[in-house]
Amino acid sequence: MQGKIDKRLVQLGITLPQPAAPAGAYVPFVLTGKLLVVAGQLPMVDGVIEHHGRVGVELSVEEGMAAARLCAINLLAQARDACDGDLDRVRRVVRLAGFVHAEPAFTEHPKVLNGASELMVDVFGPPGRHARIAVGAASLPLGAAVEIEGMFELS
Amino acid sequence: MQGKIDKRLVQLGITLPQPAAPAGAYVPFVLTGKLLVVAGQLPMVDGVIEHHGRVGVELSVEEGMAAARLCAINLLAQARDACDGDLDRVRRVVRLAGFVHAEPAFTEHPKVLNGASELMVDVFGPPGRHARIAVGAASLPLGAAVEIEGMFELS
Amino acid sequence: MQGKIDKRLVQLGITLPQPAAPAGAYVPFVLTGKLLVVAGQLPMVDGVIEHHGRVGVELSVEEGMAAARLCAINLLAQARDACDGDLDRVRRVVRLAGFVHAEPAFTEHPKVLNGASELMVDVFGPPGRHARIAVGAASLPLGAAVEIEGMFELS
Repeated sequence: MQGKIDKRLVQLGITLPQPAAPAGAYVPFVLTGKLLVVAGQLPMVDGVIEHHGRVGVELSVEEGMAAARLCAINLLAQARDACDGDLDRVRRVVRLAGFVHAEPAFTEHPKVLNGASELMVDVFGPPGRHARIAVGAASLPLGAAVEIEGMFELS
Repeated sequence: MQGKIDKRLVQLGITLPQPAAPAGAYVPFVLTGKLLVVAGQLPMVDGVIEHHGRVGVELSVEEGMAAARLCAINLLAQARDACDGDLDRVRRVVRLAGFVHAEPAFTEHPKVLNGASELMVDVFGPPGRHARIAVGAASLPLGAAVEIEGMFELS
Repeated sequence: MQGKIDKRLVQLGITLPQPAAPAGAYVPFVLTGKLLVVAGQLPMVDGVIEHHGRVGVELSVEEGMAAARLCAINLLAQARDACDGDLDRVRRVVRLAGFVHAEPAFTEHPKVLNGASELMVDVFGPPGRHARIAVGAASLPLGAAVEIEGMFELS
């Protein structure tokens, strides 16, 4: 049966991928109490990084936003798996921590991360509104442009 | 009515600002259970970054400490808002994550972050003692010198 | 009395050190509900950083892995202290956040962090499997090559 959030994803034209396998010796999520901690997700499609390099150098801010949106889609794919397929169990997106690969002079991290934040609100409505930290990283796994970690409250 | 922590802030000569609006499509805090997650705060006064640039390059360590203290004051302003004005509801400062804009050779992140950590203990006493991570960021939103995220336990 | 995890540490030939004193005005861990938040740990032995510099520049990836393993051992020393000496109270390793001091072109953060992740699974078995984020830091406290923060669920 299709839930409310599944229907919303269809409306938005978003197909969640199979959740990505972890890039190392860890698991993609852990549930502790009602708190779901999802491992850092990269802008990956079918196991391949779609957005490489530094935002503001090799990539535009708009490409950075697309990378952040893709990280958010991958977070949702993991969250769905954690909820046994039922994203209606997400009661709140609690926190996103976003790392943007960028040079010292780069300042537009908030705009880049909006690519992920706006997706969460589009998908979940008001419960998609989350606390956030946006930071410039010196480098990221596999050369990714953006990496985002998530925390969700489940019912 | 003025609470215990409000009185302590007066004693310390600290006036909490209106909480800063988020720099992007997110909210400044989320409460999940008793855990309050406050979004990354910048060294901002009235919407303007007070401390720009790299600590150890454009800014001294002392200026970095002042930036960290200002981030902490902004965290408290958000926390007060989350507590409907009653900071006495803060049972514990759980965690600060502090990012310092700095060069590869910089090593004094702990000293910089003490500007925030000492404020928390001055304000809350022993419940202000928190776990912490201090990291060097390649860049930060709006060119800020320091950014700090907070987690609090409320009663 | 020696617990199950103590015995496992002996089997692995690991002696946990005295937990390191914080490098600043904070505490090494905070317990909130069943969630134990452990402050960022450095690759330190007896108060001295063992692994300095950038992984991929001054240090090999293998040395980075050794640094990450040492951070994990220091996390366990703090967790044991938080559990009043009884690591059998750790029900789950929830999250590791690992920062690797590296240059923009570095991409092997997952491999570096495996030094910590594999140790957690060696020590705790399946409950040692955790969510993780691996990020490249522009610099780290005291010049360390790696810094890792931990979150544990206690019984």
